[in-house]
Amino acid sequence: MNIAVIGLGTMGLPMALNLLQAGYSVTVHNRTRQREAAACDRGAIAADSPQTAAQGAAVIITCVSDSPDVEAVILGDKGIIQGAEPGSVVVDMSTISPEVTRHLAHQLHSRNIAMLDAPVSGGSEGAQKGTLSIMVGGDGAVLERVRPVLSVLGSTITHVGAIGSGQLTKAINQIIVAGTYWAVAEGLALGLKAGLDMDQVVQAVGGGAAGSWGLSHRSGHMIANDYPLGFRLRLHRKDLNIALAAARELGVVLPVSAYVEQMETGLIQQGYGDEDVSALARSIRQQSGL
Amino acid sequence: MNIAVIGLGTMGLPMALNLLQAGYSVTVHNRTRQREAAACDRGAIAADSPQTAAQGAAVIITCVSDSPDVEAVILGDKGIIQGAEPGSVVVDMSTISPEVTRHLAHQLHSRNIAMLDAPVSGGSEGAQKGTLSIMVGGDGAVLERVRPVLSVLGSTITHVGAIGSGQLTKAINQIIVAGTYWAVAEGLALGLKAGLDMDQVVQAVGGGAAGSWGLSHRSGHMIANDYPLGFRLRLHRKDLNIALAAARELGVVLPVSAYVEQMETGLIQQGYGDEDVSALARSIRQQSGL
Repeated sequence: MNIAVIGLGTMGLPMALNLLQAGYSVTVHNRTRQREAAACDRGAIAADSPQTAAQGAAVIITCVSDSPDVEAVILGDKGIIQGAEPGSVVVDMSTISPEVTRHLAHQLHSRNIAMLDAPVSGGSEGAQKGTLSIMVGGDGAVLERVRPVLSVLGSTITHVGAIGSGQLTKAINQIIVAGTYWAVAEGLALGLKAGLDMDQVVQAVGGGAAGSWGLSHRSGHMIANDYPLGFRLRLHRKDLNIALAAARELGVVLPVSAYVEQMETGLIQQGYGDEDVSALARSIRQQSGL
Repeated sequence: MNIAVIGLGTMGLPMALNLLQAGYSVTVHNRTRQREAAACDRGAIAADSPQTAAQGAAVIITCVSDSPDVEAVILGDKGIIQGAEPGSVVVDMSTISPEVTRHLAHQLHSRNIAMLDAPVSGGSEGAQKGTLSIMVGGDGAVLERVRPVLSVLGSTITHVGAIGSGQLTKAINQIIVAGTYWAVAEGLALGLKAGLDMDQVVQAVGGGAAGSWGLSHRSGHMIANDYPLGFRLRLHRKDLNIALAAARELGVVLPVSAYVEQMETGLIQQGYGDEDVSALARSIRQQSGL
């Protein structure tokens, strides 16, 4: 089976390599063409456009930065829609707007090309190890056709609903990350200012109702005031804005997410956008003289 | 060894019973005297005041509602300070103000009575099973003297610092609970309004950076919009106000905790104060027409 992978960034490149490793024929395209070399060295075929990459592919995976990028590679000049064959499936693994996703799926559907939205969590480490969590929206029968391919990329594949639902689920993930990390940062700030033994504090509260992945895995960063990646704060803000736009559209109020988005804007302004999301703690530390 | 237990509420009564079960001589006192009967049936001796209960006790445990109650049983008319012997230890297991705690410890110290603050988490179930998490502030050597007693009541005993530090740690716990539960409620509201398969959504996001005790154990309440106890929302608000007062004193800003406290006030006003804290989700549901 031929698979196209369009977008060879931190996530797309290791995904392409895992597909090659699993024995698939893989055609790749990246806007900055030099990034294709790492995949071609391992047997991928380079294509000079998304259109060319999509020709003859049963599954076309896109993994780019944001809604306009996905729109460009699917609908733009020399886009996927001009090369993909009827009956093929576009699987967009970028994190983008659910509304844009539905629009793209509609356009592809008119050419008998199916689409799934399949954003991921698990970071670059998950992409490399093939252990991503993949949140899939779209037709269940289409998912079953591409499940063997997705199984190479992720260890958890969850079908959450119709087209766009994968993106909404990723938005939910980022909303919860925002508030949970912020909550941990508020709690830790009180203990830091009071001079408590913070390792003991984390141990004392981590086993009960205050426990979270953020507390277990990011409190160390917040206590040390040092925020190695992880997941970039500026990308988390991008995702939160997708969530806030979707919530506005649906009529859902997200006051804490909106607040955290503003604090992230302040941190990006100060040059902290390429730190891990847990750098949110800087905001409370600054305001509290810590 | 003689132990006094003052305050036989949801937490204090099972604690007294566990101490009797472990073979200690236990003297009990409760403001509403009838509640002493359940302990006396199992071998406890009733005392007509905190003063009387404290006489001859090596360890005096207090477990009452709020700062003024602890002040009253320790310093008030017929209070512990009038009955306790030099060399005895008062262990306050209530959740109260760290500042009031330090004041009480100072007063007791002038009579050669030691004090530890030792608030707990783990709820009534933890109190019954003797599996509470106990957060201890005060002198480490004093803690070692009473550790065998505390070990009957809890499975995790963490020494976090000087007197008042246990209360600060409990405050940190409640700050993190506030923000984490709220974050889960915001995320779920988006999915509910969009009509996603919420069980699948919880499964998809629960294993990664969005994971928390609140998501695992309280998302079901929030999805069903039904909030059985658990821990009462109005008691959580009381604890958040202790945290906010301590933060104000220390100069730490807690914007999300302050916001959640206000939303809890609104929910209490509407008659939801005796529901579980996860009823916070009602606030977002109401504002989002869910």
